Amino acid sequence: MYTENNPGNNMESYKYDYLFSFTCEIFMKMGCSSKDAATIAEVFLAAEIRDIPSHGMIRLKDYYQLWQKGRIKTDPDIRIVHETPSTAVVDGDMAVGMVPAKRSMELAISKALQTGTGWVATRNSNHFGIAGYYSMLALKHDMVGICLTNANPLVAPTFSVSPMMGTNPIAVAIPADKQPPLVADFATTPIARGKLAVAEKKGEKVAFGFVQDSKGSPSDDPAILKSGGSMLTLGGDRLHGSHKGYCLSALVDIFSAVFSGANFGPFVPPSVAYLPLLEEKVGEGTGHFFGAMRIDAFREASEFKTSMDKWITTFRSAKPAEGQENVLIPGDIERDAEVRNIKHGIKLVPAVREDLKAIAQSFEIDFE
Amino acid sequence: MYTENNPGNNMESYKYDYLFSFTCEIFMKMGCSSKDAATIAEVFLAAEIRDIPSHGMIRLKDYYQLWQKGRIKTDPDIRIVHETPSTAVVDGDMAVGMVPAKRSMELAISKALQTGTGWVATRNSNHFGIAGYYSMLALKHDMVGICLTNANPLVAPTFSVSPMMGTNPIAVAIPADKQPPLVADFATTPIARGKLAVAEKKGEKVAFGFVQDSKGSPSDDPAILKSGGSMLTLGGDRLHGSHKGYCLSALVDIFSAVFSGANFGPFVPPSVAYLPLLEEKVGEGTGHFFGAMRIDAFREASEFKTSMDKWITTFRSAKPAEGQENVLIPGDIERDAEVRNIKHGIKLVPAVREDLKAIAQSFEIDFE
Repeated sequence: MYTENNPGNNMESYKYDYLFSFTCEIFMKMGCSSKDAATIAEVFLAAEIRDIPSHGMIRLKDYYQLWQKGRIKTDPDIRIVHETPSTAVVDGDMAVGMVPAKRSMELAISKALQTGTGWVATRNSNHFGIAGYYSMLALKHDMVGICLTNANPLVAPTFSVSPMMGTNPIAVAIPADKQPPLVADFATTPIARGKLAVAEKKGEKVAFGFVQDSKGSPSDDPAILKSGGSMLTLGGDRLHGSHKGYCLSALVDIFSAVFSGANFGPFVPPSVAYLPLLEEKVGEGTGHFFGAMRIDAFREASEFKTSMDKWITTFRSAKPAEGQENVLIPGDIERDAEVRNIKHGIKLVPAVREDLKAIAQSFEIDFE
Repeated sequence: MYTENNPGNNMESYKYDYLFSFTCEIFMKMGCSSKDAATIAEVFLAAEIRDIPSHGMIRLKDYYQLWQKGRIKTDPDIRIVHETPSTAVVDGDMAVGMVPAKRSMELAISKALQTGTGWVATRNSNHFGIAGYYSMLALKHDMVGICLTNANPLVAPTFSVSPMMGTNPIAVAIPADKQPPLVADFATTPIARGKLAVAEKKGEKVAFGFVQDSKGSPSDDPAILKSGGSMLTLGGDRLHGSHKGYCLSALVDIFSAVFSGANFGPFVPPSVAYLPLLEEKVGEGTGHFFGAMRIDAFREASEFKTSMDKWITTFRSAKPAEGQENVLIPGDIERDAEVRNIKHGIKLVPAVREDLKAIAQSFEIDFE
């Protein structure tokens, strides 16, 4: 049924709408409502078009396998378990992460409409895709959006060799007027986990400053995590401020899990089915944290946005270092990628296409 | 009049109470109310006892000289210029930064009592000492405290050689139960500005990764800022995530200044009198941002605090790297310093003592 939209087997590019419909259909086959399936597809594709494929279609297989093992629910009963005028805690009931995450961000936005700001911590959730997606939901309401999440432990605190934290991202979206919004979305480690996997597949070493071995010595081996190694926090080593990266990652963990009652630190459950659930738990599932702040809760919205325009143009006109073309504003690269990928299609590597085909087949759906 | 409390000229250590009374008297001579003077003294000494002398008594001279030049007001009319149930903007009326900063944090706390959280952006302020002080004010109310501030520009964004941002710190204080609170308070650069000054005075080089020269090449010269160089953001270079440090520093700047209507980025006024005010301004004075979040706005307070205890003990028991004794929790080092410095006294270097004596003399006050 998707044949007319499908660019064909010999091409690696897919149209947005084709992948969107396909993803919706797969999740509906798994038992999701059409609304929830659309939310999940939207977040998958937000990652793809923003050139963050590590959080896009490649993950469909992970959710499929978690669903097969009964580790995620596709008909969840997502509910508010605690609230005040500006805050809430949401229980995600083991849903596919995107569903309680979007619900939580919408709740933060509705609270902000009432009291100026809204803050929602979410427990009992799963991997939710890219944090930036949720922060950007606030923009159309003339709000600043914030999103944090914890993740399964790969990263060691300063002075330690124990993987205690995830790559725990921070996303903040800030509206401007004539300028595009500023959207910062970054892991609190020097690099993403996926970059290690890519280097490992290519048989390449990585730069020092990303990982350490099981004794805490610097390493350039991208496969070191398999032999007791761990990722380093932003800063790399104590001399260069790794303790500040540790603070950041710890704060993201606490806001996501201690506020909500989710698992924190080394207890965060794995987001893939081939890793077993941990025996000990200190809360429910994975945790997220969402914030929405009405800009007119602080100043006239037009004043705020004009000031952001001036901020952006000021920073854009900073003098480039020798050999550099220009200074970037957070979000520039991803926005350019969106335009390009919507126009030219979303490229999927053969391994992902094969996985999607196999899953499609199991539901008697076509994927070309 | 302070002689009985003064350990004498030949010692470098001063009792907390002696320095507190002295600082109060100096600021009252400058025209501060006794209440405001006490606030200022408290923040100065919070820096001293937490072993952050760069933000302590050494700064008294800067405020004195700014006051002499009419660049700070000691009888300010600090007022709320905009508010909603959970937010406000405060105009500091060019006060000594500690005064509007404490007022703003107290306002955030009172709003949190009403609506669960309180968020205050402050403009037209000045250097306010250590950010950690304000975040910790929330702890006794069973709240999480947050404090950000921008500062005069020394730091270049990734790919640039223009100093556009301050060392823009982030402070977050989180209450626990039997464990001491977690208090993170860190600049968004690998090192503090003061460490460059110390290395320069000693005639030493610094490690690479802290500063760059006027072309954007790596430098180990701690005096490079005087010849067109700039400090680097956390991460150091693009490969190691300096763009994430840039995001952080930018977010602190925007929250402090665009929310409040203060000067941002390269327009933040210098906090020392020997540097002239800039001709162009985009707002009023320096900006800060404060947050207070009632922990029982998310969970039962006792549950939250028990969970924080478990978080802290879990991280404290992480396996140390070879050659390291133990993993630290943010705030451990400063808390140990507080105990030590209260007991053994606060050490002041001769140059600071001489400055304090000269200022004391100008007001016909004793300082021994």
